[in-house]
Amino acid sequence: MTEHRYPDDDRVAIYRVIRERRDTRHFRPGAIDPAVLQRLLEAARFAPSVGYMQPWRFIRITDPSLRRAIHALVRAECEETAAACGERAEEVRRLKLEGILECGELLVAALTEGRERYILGRRTLPEMDLCSVACAIQNLWLAARAEGLGMGWVSLFEPDELAQLLNLPEGARPVAVLCLGHVDAFYPEPLLETVGWDTRRPAEETVFENGWGRPAKLPKRVCEKRSERPEGKEPGAQKPECTSGT
Amino acid sequence: MTEHRYPDDDRVAIYRVIRERRDTRHFRPGAIDPAVLQRLLEAARFAPSVGYMQPWRFIRITDPSLRRAIHALVRAECEETAAACGERAEEVRRLKLEGILECGELLVAALTEGRERYILGRRTLPEMDLCSVACAIQNLWLAARAEGLGMGWVSLFEPDELAQLLNLPEGARPVAVLCLGHVDAFYPEPLLETVGWDTRRPAEETVFENGWGRPAKLPKRVCEKRSERPEGKEPGAQKPECTSGT
Repeated sequence: MTEHRYPDDDRVAIYRVIRERRDTRHFRPGAIDPAVLQRLLEAARFAPSVGYMQPWRFIRITDPSLRRAIHALVRAECEETAAACGERAEEVRRLKLEGILECGELLVAALTEGRERYILGRRTLPEMDLCSVACAIQNLWLAARAEGLGMGWVSLFEPDELAQLLNLPEGARPVAVLCLGHVDAFYPEPLLETVGWDTRRPAEETVFENGWGRPAKLPKRVCEKRSERPEGKEPGAQKPECTSGT
Repeated sequence: MTEHRYPDDDRVAIYRVIRERRDTRHFRPGAIDPAVLQRLLEAARFAPSVGYMQPWRFIRITDPSLRRAIHALVRAECEETAAACGERAEEVRRLKLEGILECGELLVAALTEGRERYILGRRTLPEMDLCSVACAIQNLWLAARAEGLGMGWVSLFEPDELAQLLNLPEGARPVAVLCLGHVDAFYPEPLLETVGWDTRRPAEETVFENGWGRPAKLPKRVCEKRSERPEGKEPGAQKPECTSGT
């Protein structure tokens, strides 16, 4: 407990949005308010970046023919992916993987060119620039959820073909097609969990201590004293004060 | 405006934490409450991941000798980086780049092994696994800020040496040394801005429309109607409703 800790209600909201953010593929029609879009892009701009390089670029797709061309690229890769998935090919073909034609707003996120000039924090780990773009997208994603909008990160495309379509300069690289839009409802859990593709890994499989595979000596389930819980919040759903791996 | 939009106060808190998160290198002593640490790791666990692969692993460093060994690795790379920075070498040497020995809690984040088995969303963009780890770290970072704790993402190390130190299996790769701890104060702006290393890029340089370099036709400054602003919040600081690029 520190003096810099946010008020309980604020922490609840922050843990809630982290839990309720979903990779969204089902949208209902309707444009996004430009003021909201601006806020989301601003949230992205406040992401951390290695050496403060801010390597992210966002391309808003408002030309319908360009949107259709991106959709065609993605559909082609969905089929390539299914074919590459062997025994799970049919399962992949049944998955809803994108909502490019339905979403109200389509963005492409890319790494900018000329990144080799940035060395701080990247000499041995040049891929840190990509981490910065991912953090920016995660900011945008969380802000979108708070605004009541769904977002899906589609990475099913040939990056060189998408780069050509959007006139990316040599050295720039698209890393995400972001479908953003209104939804009837948010999935109660990740869609790939609902359809049985995979399950959420228990915490103890992903947290070690002092070396790979050595179990962490953290309590399995930690609840704060009830008196510290924020008042007037529903139990269940986000449960930020009670962090068992459910 | 949708029915899924969070209440104004909650949105304010979420935009606030996005703006107030800082890459932190100055810590004051003091352990982290295990319940808080558990919440932070749980926030990471709820990150998005490509094909739901959840490729992140976190290693908590509680052994002081291991912490010192990690510190030595990082200091060595700081010097290599400075030397590689040519005319900015002395500037790099003066930068405070990590707080490994001072922070209350040290974590290493890594990509797990065996990732080649995951194809969905990665056939053409295998690096999406790294994006998933970055999103998990960003969740943890935002949650830490809300808990009043600072965090720094240090990427100054030789990954193979750190992998060896922590017995990572073949194919796993460390991507972050995370310093987490109490702070006297949060930087009012990114430290690399304060010391004159670089400045925040204006929004119009990072958002295009329908193709690289084509200016987006979004309003430069968008404020919601005053009546829509949350009540009882101080102006200034986060200003979530008013998104000019300042």
